[in-house]
Amino acid sequence: MSRTDFLQAPELRPFLPLLLVAWSDGDLEPAELAALHEHVERTPWLRPAARIALRAWLDPAAPPTVGDIAALRSTLDRVAGTMARHRRRDLVALGLSMAGPGANEDTRKALIELEAQLGGPDDDGIDAPPEPSAPADSQRSAAMRTVLDGEHRETRDGIREFLSDPERRAYGLDTQAYRAKVTTWLDELAQAGFGALAFPGVTTEQPDLGAFFAAFETLALGDLSLLIKCGVQFGLFGGSIFFLGRPEQRAAYLPGAATLEIPGCFAMSEVGHGSDVQGLETEARWDAHARTFTIVTPSESARKDWIGGAAQTARIATVFANLVADGQRHGVHAFVVPIRAEDGALLPGVRAGDSGHKMGLNGVDNGRLWFEDVVVPEDALLGRFAQMDAQGRYESAIENPNRRFFTMLGTLVGGRVSVASGAVGVSKVGVAIAVRYASRRRQFGAKGEAEVPLLDYPQHRRRLLPHLASTYVLSLACAELQSRFAAAQREGTDGVPGDTREIESSAAILKALASQHAVDTLAECRRACGGQGYLSVNRIPALMNDVEIFTTFEGDNTVLLQLVARSLLAGLAKRFESKGLSGVVREVMRRTKAAAVEKNVVAIRRVASDHLRDRDFHLAALRYREEHLLQTAGQRLRKRLSRGMPSNHAVLALQEHLVALAWAHADRLALEWFDLRVQAVRRTSPDLASELDRLGALHALGRIRAESGFYFSEGYIDPRKDSAMRKETELLLTEIRASALTLVDAFGIPDVALAAPIAFMDPAHPVW
Amino acid sequence: MSRTDFLQAPELRPFLPLLLVAWSDGDLEPAELAALHEHVERTPWLRPAARIALRAWLDPAAPPTVGDIAALRSTLDRVAGTMARHRRRDLVALGLSMAGPGANEDTRKALIELEAQLGGPDDDGIDAPPEPSAPADSQRSAAMRTVLDGEHRETRDGIREFLSDPERRAYGLDTQAYRAKVTTWLDELAQAGFGALAFPGVTTEQPDLGAFFAAFETLALGDLSLLIKCGVQFGLFGGSIFFLGRPEQRAAYLPGAATLEIPGCFAMSEVGHGSDVQGLETEARWDAHARTFTIVTPSESARKDWIGGAAQTARIATVFANLVADGQRHGVHAFVVPIRAEDGALLPGVRAGDSGHKMGLNGVDNGRLWFEDVVVPEDALLGRFAQMDAQGRYESAIENPNRRFFTMLGTLVGGRVSVASGAVGVSKVGVAIAVRYASRRRQFGAKGEAEVPLLDYPQHRRRLLPHLASTYVLSLACAELQSRFAAAQREGTDGVPGDTREIESSAAILKALASQHAVDTLAECRRACGGQGYLSVNRIPALMNDVEIFTTFEGDNTVLLQLVARSLLAGLAKRFESKGLSGVVREVMRRTKAAAVEKNVVAIRRVASDHLRDRDFHLAALRYREEHLLQTAGQRLRKRLSRGMPSNHAVLALQEHLVALAWAHADRLALEWFDLRVQAVRRTSPDLASELDRLGALHALGRIRAESGFYFSEGYIDPRKDSAMRKETELLLTEIRASALTLVDAFGIPDVALAAPIAFMDPAHPVW
Repeated sequence: MSRTDFLQAPELRPFLPLLLVAWSDGDLEPAELAALHEHVERTPWLRPAARIALRAWLDPAAPPTVGDIAALRSTLDRVAGTMARHRRRDLVALGLSMAGPGANEDTRKALIELEAQLGGPDDDGIDAPPEPSAPADSQRSAAMRTVLDGEHRETRDGIREFLSDPERRAYGLDTQAYRAKVTTWLDELAQAGFGALAFPGVTTEQPDLGAFFAAFETLALGDLSLLIKCGVQFGLFGGSIFFLGRPEQRAAYLPGAATLEIPGCFAMSEVGHGSDVQGLETEARWDAHARTFTIVTPSESARKDWIGGAAQTARIATVFANLVADGQRHGVHAFVVPIRAEDGALLPGVRAGDSGHKMGLNGVDNGRLWFEDVVVPEDALLGRFAQMDAQGRYESAIENPNRRFFTMLGTLVGGRVSVASGAVGVSKVGVAIAVRYASRRRQFGAKGEAEVPLLDYPQHRRRLLPHLASTYVLSLACAELQSRFAAAQREGTDGVPGDTREIESSAAILKALASQHAVDTLAECRRACGGQGYLSVNRIPALMNDVEIFTTFEGDNTVLLQLVARSLLAGLAKRFESKGLSGVVREVMRRTKAAAVEKNVVAIRRVASDHLRDRDFHLAALRYREEHLLQTAGQRLRKRLSRGMPSNHAVLALQEHLVALAWAHADRLALEWFDLRVQAVRRTSPDLASELDRLGALHALGRIRAESGFYFSEGYIDPRKDSAMRKETELLLTEIRASALTLVDAFGIPDVALAAPIAFMDPAHPVW
Repeated sequence: MSRTDFLQAPELRPFLPLLLVAWSDGDLEPAELAALHEHVERTPWLRPAARIALRAWLDPAAPPTVGDIAALRSTLDRVAGTMARHRRRDLVALGLSMAGPGANEDTRKALIELEAQLGGPDDDGIDAPPEPSAPADSQRSAAMRTVLDGEHRETRDGIREFLSDPERRAYGLDTQAYRAKVTTWLDELAQAGFGALAFPGVTTEQPDLGAFFAAFETLALGDLSLLIKCGVQFGLFGGSIFFLGRPEQRAAYLPGAATLEIPGCFAMSEVGHGSDVQGLETEARWDAHARTFTIVTPSESARKDWIGGAAQTARIATVFANLVADGQRHGVHAFVVPIRAEDGALLPGVRAGDSGHKMGLNGVDNGRLWFEDVVVPEDALLGRFAQMDAQGRYESAIENPNRRFFTMLGTLVGGRVSVASGAVGVSKVGVAIAVRYASRRRQFGAKGEAEVPLLDYPQHRRRLLPHLASTYVLSLACAELQSRFAAAQREGTDGVPGDTREIESSAAILKALASQHAVDTLAECRRACGGQGYLSVNRIPALMNDVEIFTTFEGDNTVLLQLVARSLLAGLAKRFESKGLSGVVREVMRRTKAAAVEKNVVAIRRVASDHLRDRDFHLAALRYREEHLLQTAGQRLRKRLSRGMPSNHAVLALQEHLVALAWAHADRLALEWFDLRVQAVRRTSPDLASELDRLGALHALGRIRAESGFYFSEGYIDPRKDSAMRKETELLLTEIRASALTLVDAFGIPDVALAAPIAFMDPAHPVW
């Protein structure tokens, strides 16, 4: 008699509900199983075959399969469905009814006794044992810091030294004083050679942008208005000339940009077209006779807005405008346009305004610009990819206007790498403050017991430590992004860059992921610090307000997610094209194949700790979800297109799906790149790699469990495994809690930047 | 041949993977089914029995059951598990392998063709048709506003008039100027009789606090520092005297509290014991001889902190301190303690400080208080529940010290009702700004097409409108909370109040839910408004910063959630006690019974629109989850206790479970109370009730789908139903989008309070 056949035996039916309760919530304990076995042996009315089958259901060495449980469930459903409502009142009645006319007082007693022995679900024995509150291990945190700092350690330490000056804090300043202070700091950074790092090969001998990114990320530990001013001056203003200018244009502007001799701004966004760069209205009208461009703001919606530096400090702007020549629009190009004289007075035809007080980043003078027939020479056009020829006609090495547009937009990619890295830096500060406070602040002891540090409360661990783990994962993933971008940029330095779409897509998605992570993390840290977290002196409020806009600038996250999803779909289409019809069939089938191969009974039920912590398991699960969402998005899209729906409408109809796909892609990419870095660490420092593995596992289990609905419905993970993942998460939290202080010390945040008094509380002498 | 038997037929196995793909993602379309049927008829190698079985699997009138699909899945898993790895490479191979030695070229072709016809999952035909962008319907919004305003319409309109004065905006003020402005406003409100509403039966003829709550909620549409100052003066300071004072004490203080003649503060929190009121250290030492109390701050951690009004404005504090008499500590009691003279000078023995600049609410002068042997007369003790007798001994009508403590704490309940209501008010402002902007702001048209209002983008609808729906649900749920609290308080006015634990628990959980809703909603609104949402002038930044602390004050949400979960567990234990052993058995079995009864095949697969929008379905699902979490928490707890684990450790070990239980309880309670209110509306205005039904359905489907992992693992909902819920959600979003402007106008937010220029954008003349 097989386990499933057993379901049909009337005399055993009373036991079904109880077996379902028992097995659907995890393993039974040996003692419970023993009690049940004993009971089965003492039940006189069971026939031998039924007795054997019941034993099989209670065999700890061979728990029922998912299929067995599904069959059990559906039998129960069927029987219950045919019962009169009042008969279903409780399980005993249900069991008796299932047993049919053969039921007797014995059955009844057996059922009640059996139930009492089963006792319901539990997970005893897994309660995490209390770990002693460990102080930070400075040797270990130094070693981990080396891992996080990577190859540009010296650059990072230089920035740390800069941030360690007690003068580097702005607190309680009004807008004008704050802007002035940030301008002074920026100047000092420029003089110290930080700006030069942004233009490798022009102002430094650096091979690429790696050092700049490392410095930028470290700078994010300090004042964020300064960070953004740096980003504007060196990354966006200087970067647009660096990427879009001809060699002589680079030579003309970049040394001055690096030293702040030429304070600049990056005038791309228009108030009516915040995220829609292709919709920009500003025009640069070519006068072939005079060989000049006239920059014009044709309407109020074309006003440049939110331009960092435009309100007060910038003297030159790189203005993104439609190049109009020969009565034709050639698309968006960048022009170097002087806007203020050396004394700060606006030049003729240029109007500027202040964008006004903001939620945060008030040390940055965001402003507005209008151009009323501002004439600039031919050379104002940044000419790496397009020029006016001797006859005064437009010419470009990139013939496809769309490709040209995206090449110009390539200037934004470095900005996105920077924003992603900066967001990780901010997260580090928030997590460090909250973890340090929670390790030392005690509250709520039971009667007669000492008060307990907040971090020893399971719920407090659970709200903070996953953010710590994800910050580590994103930190290493961003390091990988920085390296890859730097490498791609090295290759593309001469002439037209190659196909950089993949790195562009990765920068966009990690920018979205890291900025969303930062706002979520800071909010949780604020709340975990209670009333203290609400006091400005404890720094978290400013961090929250400053980082909030990271989700919007350099590409609104929602827009970026859709761009990335579209590029994944384009990649899918390419796979199709290159494989012909049979390839198409195979591709469409991949999903079910994956289901059959990966979702075998063994895998979906594996609950051993080493499996649950195995990066291969995590990566396979995240890849499965990404691939599933990609394939189904492709199918839904093709179906709409084949019915004649215009492609923009079809994409619009799938927006929710595409956003989910892009997030899934982000999760997979971040973990994969983290993994690459951890593998490298393992070669030299296996113990640090193990520590990182733990953090990676906590992060990954969180991401997978957040989508448990998806994995259940796909049959990729079953509830029993999910429950095991929850328990494993609790163990990981307990382990990581023990080294939490060491892990936040490894961020290497200077005390002046950490700033918050609650981060420096000595339990013996609390800072109140 | 039954459907499941079919799985065993070798010649049909190749079709299994394809059937799984087809059915596991929703209904097949008629055209697809027709194509498949035709194909089956043209397949020469199928035996008649197999042909009939295949037809059965493709019958649109009888889709496979969950059990069928589970069986299909597990057969696939089993077969795939026995295949050589390279054989699994694609589905065709898999299908061939399944077909066994009988497979031939026909099978192969059939499989490929069949797959091509299946084409994969889709949900075409449900793409929401674009709805015309409807302007607000003022008649309808007025009617809906009547519903939201409820019985205290006049009071609300009075507050609206107050908020409509252009002077009622604070923008860009420094801390001192802001505090001064708020103090002036508060005085004006008091003179207008608003404060008197807080003390029904003493300063007004109002029967209860209903009018006060209505006014408070409306006030939340305006400046939140003013709101909190009102809460401190009337709700907390006045409220503590109202609830804890004897009639003569009420008469002595409350008229002055209502008119602001006596500006007061509520000195409960201590810096070392933010959430742990039972751990307060401040002492009130009884001198039986002099019949005085001496108020003492015995240590720095006992410093009163974050006390609204303590920094500058308050002249009297109600101080919560341990009453020490007869060498015994009698627990926390409230004392009326003068702290400042009329000229504002601190009285002898009182020290005060400023809590410092905060993330928001800087119009409130939060401060610190220390008491150095401050002697107050016997009558300082608020004596409703405890006095010193003629012999100078402590006496209380409530003998149980624990019960006494919670009775004293009852003063906080009204505060929680207020905070919940205020949080809903703030959410209304945020949602109104974002929805109004998104309805008019256009961006990103396809080539040759007009730009599209943001709210016509599915993703934008999806991020904003659920917050609109939840705001409606919580608004009506809070109205119900206000009524119930007012009723309970009417009953308890004379003598010792009855058992108010239920309403206390409801106030606590709705405070947590509404404040979490407010911070989530405001953050989403900020991001949905892009760069505009970051500008202070557009008001969202201040709302975010002000409302952030709602999650912490008047009881930290995490602490409240645990309190509520404990009280649910206590209720469960009581059910056990009153029912004896057989009751226990029945209780423990309830869950499985529910599984058998509610999770019948029909229910878990019902996907018709009217079912998915049916409040009974929503409530049953939310109740099921709450009950499941409660039962399992009870079982896990009992198991730990029976093994001798101390109860505080046992509760700690279950913290995550308890927090989940409390949120589930909150979701169920909010929807249930919303439902009560909607039923009342239906009697007079069925069309408004339908509109509310839609909002309720959008809210409820969101809550259920957020827990899809739970519902799948319980077999309560299957993936096909989940997919139908997703589609229904899209339809609801489209319908609600059409009346979104009307729905936010119904909040009745005065223009001066709405304030944000982006909320007043006219598409023809955009406010840039």
